Amino acid sequence: MALIVKKFGGSSVKDAEHVKNVAGIIVDEYKSGNNVIVVVSAQGDTTDDLIEKAKEISPNPTKREMDMLLTAGEQISISLLAMAIETMGCPVISLLGWQAGFNTDSHHGIARIKKINTERMKTELAKGNIIIVAGFQGINKYDDLTTLGRGGSDTSAVAIAAAMSADRCQIYTDVDGVYTADPRKVKGAVKMDEVQYDEMLEMATLGAQVLNNRSVEMAKKYNVELEVLSSLERKPGTIIKEHTKMEKTLIRGVAKDTSVTTISLVGLNDKPGVAFKLFNKLAQYNVNVDIILQSVGRDGTKDITFTVSHEQCDDALKAIDAMKDVFECKEVKTNNSMSKISIVGAGMETNPGVAAKMFEALYDKDINIHMISTSETKISVLIDTELADRAVQAVHDAFIG
Amino acid sequence: MALIVKKFGGSSVKDAEHVKNVAGIIVDEYKSGNNVIVVVSAQGDTTDDLIEKAKEISPNPTKREMDMLLTAGEQISISLLAMAIETMGCPVISLLGWQAGFNTDSHHGIARIKKINTERMKTELAKGNIIIVAGFQGINKYDDLTTLGRGGSDTSAVAIAAAMSADRCQIYTDVDGVYTADPRKVKGAVKMDEVQYDEMLEMATLGAQVLNNRSVEMAKKYNVELEVLSSLERKPGTIIKEHTKMEKTLIRGVAKDTSVTTISLVGLNDKPGVAFKLFNKLAQYNVNVDIILQSVGRDGTKDITFTVSHEQCDDALKAIDAMKDVFECKEVKTNNSMSKISIVGAGMETNPGVAAKMFEALYDKDINIHMISTSETKISVLIDTELADRAVQAVHDAFIG
Repeated sequence: MALIVKKFGGSSVKDAEHVKNVAGIIVDEYKSGNNVIVVVSAQGDTTDDLIEKAKEISPNPTKREMDMLLTAGEQISISLLAMAIETMGCPVISLLGWQAGFNTDSHHGIARIKKINTERMKTELAKGNIIIVAGFQGINKYDDLTTLGRGGSDTSAVAIAAAMSADRCQIYTDVDGVYTADPRKVKGAVKMDEVQYDEMLEMATLGAQVLNNRSVEMAKKYNVELEVLSSLERKPGTIIKEHTKMEKTLIRGVAKDTSVTTISLVGLNDKPGVAFKLFNKLAQYNVNVDIILQSVGRDGTKDITFTVSHEQCDDALKAIDAMKDVFECKEVKTNNSMSKISIVGAGMETNPGVAAKMFEALYDKDINIHMISTSETKISVLIDTELADRAVQAVHDAFIG
Repeated sequence: MALIVKKFGGSSVKDAEHVKNVAGIIVDEYKSGNNVIVVVSAQGDTTDDLIEKAKEISPNPTKREMDMLLTAGEQISISLLAMAIETMGCPVISLLGWQAGFNTDSHHGIARIKKINTERMKTELAKGNIIIVAGFQGINKYDDLTTLGRGGSDTSAVAIAAAMSADRCQIYTDVDGVYTADPRKVKGAVKMDEVQYDEMLEMATLGAQVLNNRSVEMAKKYNVELEVLSSLERKPGTIIKEHTKMEKTLIRGVAKDTSVTTISLVGLNDKPGVAFKLFNKLAQYNVNVDIILQSVGRDGTKDITFTVSHEQCDDALKAIDAMKDVFECKEVKTNNSMSKISIVGAGMETNPGVAAKMFEALYDKDINIHMISTSETKISVLIDTELADRAVQAVHDAFIG
C-alpha cells in the first residue's frame, strides 16, 4: 500500500462537474488500494471574487484580514470535494490547513511553513479515510490564519508528501506534463517522461509555467518524487526526481520569459564600488536582478545594464533614484520589449559547443542577441519580444527537432 | 467604560454598502469610549448559495462537511467587516468561532455551546481592539468545526455577553424593536421600551419573529440585558431584561402563528393510558405538541385533538400509524388552515377578566374559537387562518388600542 499525495488547482474544481471528475480520480486511486491525501485550491474564480469584495470595502486591507478572507475559498472547495467523494461511497474527511497541522511563520500573505504536525493526518489515514486538505493556508503561533502566497497549494502538497513520507506527489494541471517547449506555440515540442529537479527549477525560473520553484525546491530538498499530469486525461504525466533515466539527452527544454525589462545606466562615473552599491541598494528594495552587463563607456565613464521583471521596474527605478547622491550617470534608459530565451539541460557545462549551436540557430533566422547569460545548466539570451516565438522555434528545432 | 456586544444578521451586512454602515455603528460605539465585541452572520444569501453548491454535488452530505462548508460564510463577513473598520482608523481584529473560544459538543448542525474560553477575547480587548466574531460556529473536542443551528448568531452574541460579563447585548435587525403586534399588519401596534424575558419567550414561541427562544433563554439564565434595535436607524430599540418599569401594563403583545395543523383522532377506544401512550409515541418521533383537547365521544369512545406545526404533521401521522396495534380509532382528521392568536403578559394569572375580554373582542367580530389554551403568562386561541389578521387587530384594539 502506497501513500499518494494529489494536488488539484482551482480550475480542476471550478464547478460541480469538475469536482465530481476530481472525486472520481481520487476514488480510483483509493480503490486501487492506496492511501490518498489530496490538496485542493479554491474553486475557479473564488479567490479573485473575494479579492474583489475586499476592494469594494478597503483600498488597502491588512494582510491579516486578507488571509482570513481568502482562506474561506479553500474551505468551500475541500468540503464540496469531500461531499462528492462521500456520494461515491468512500470514507473521507476534509481538513483546513491548521487542522492538517500546517504551522507557519507570521508573514501574512507570504508565510513559510515552519512545521507540519502530522498527528491528525496519521489518525485519519489509520481510520481508512481519504483526506482532503485545504492548500495555500496554515496557522501562526498566535492561532491566526496565514496564506503561503503564490503557488501555495503546490507547496502545501509537496510539504505534506515530505512530512508524511509519501511515495509520490502528483500535481494535476491543465497540461499533461512537462514539455521541451510550450506545446501551444512550438511545433515539435515533446512531452518528457522524466526530468531532474535542477532542470525543472531552471525551466520554472526561465518562464515555464507548470510548477512554481518553491515547491520544486522543497521536493528536491526532501527528495519527494513529483509527477505533473492532467486532471482531464487519465494518462501518465512527467516525473520529476533526482536521477532520471535520460541523462544522454543534453538539452531538456526551451523556455521563454517575456516579462523582461532592461534598465541601463549610461555614462556612470567610474568610481570604485559603484556596482556593489547599486546592487546592494536594489536588494534593499527587494528587486531581483537577473542578467547584468557592464561595459566601458566614453570619457572614463561606464555603462551598466541589468534586467528585472516588468513588475519590479518601478521599484528598481526608485532604488536608483535613492542613489543619486552616491553616483552620477548621464541617463537611465528602460526597455520593456525584451524577452529571454533559454535552453536548459543538466551537464551543459561539459559541452562547450552548445552555446555556439544556439547562437547559430538564432543567427540563421536573423535574430539579434542583446545580452547573454550562462550557468551550469542553462544558456539565456535576450532578444526583442516580437521575435521571441520565432526564436524559441528555431532553438527547439536545432536541439530537439 | 462599558463592554457592549453587538450582533448583526446577514441582511445587515449583505453588500459593501451595508458592511460600511454597520462599521459606522461599531466605530461610533468604540469612539464613545466603550469596548465593543461584534458578532456577525454570513452575508445576505451566502449561506443559501453554499447550500445550493452542496446540493449540486450531493443529495445528502454529512453534517460534518456541511458545517465545514457553511462556516466559510461568516469567515468572509467577519474579515470584510474588519476591513471596513480598518478604513475608519480603528484597531480591529476578526476571530472565527474557535479563535474566540467557542467550544461545543459534536452535534454538527445543531451544536450546543459547552464553554467559551475567553482568553483570546480578553487579550484583544486589552490591546484596545474592536473584536469581530464569526457567529453561528464553534469547534468540538476533535478540533472539527461545528454550527449552532437556527438563530445561532443570536446565541453566539448572548453567550459572549454572558461569558465576558458585558453590560448589554444589542441584537440589530430590520425592525426597530419589539412591538405589541406585527406593525406591518396591525394598526396601532406599539413599540415597547422594555419587556421581560418571560414575556419575550412567550411571544417568540407564539410566532413573533424578532428573536429566537434559545438566545432569550440564555439571556435570562445569565441575566444578560438584551436590546433589539434597527441597523438602519440610529435610535433606541426595545430592552429585554428581568424586571421592567412597566409592570402596570398587563398585556404586552398580541402574536400570531399561522403554522398550525390540528390532528384529530375521532372515536378512540377509551382504554386507560391511551393518551399517555399516544403523546409518549409522539415525543419519540420528536413531535412538539402544543394545544391538546380531549372530549367525550359517542358509544364509550373519546376524541383527542392536538396541534403541531405544519412541518411536523407528517411525523405526527407516522407516530399515530405506529400506534395502530395499541388503540383503534374511527378516523384521523387533519386541518392545516388553523392559526393561533395569543396575548402575552406577565401577571395575567391574577386577572381573571382578561380571557373573557379577549373572547368578547373576537365574538364582536364574529370570529369563531376552535380551541383555547392558557398559561400563567399567555392566552391562546385557535381560529381559522383566513380570519387571523382580523382577529389580531380586534384583540390588539381591545387591549392596547
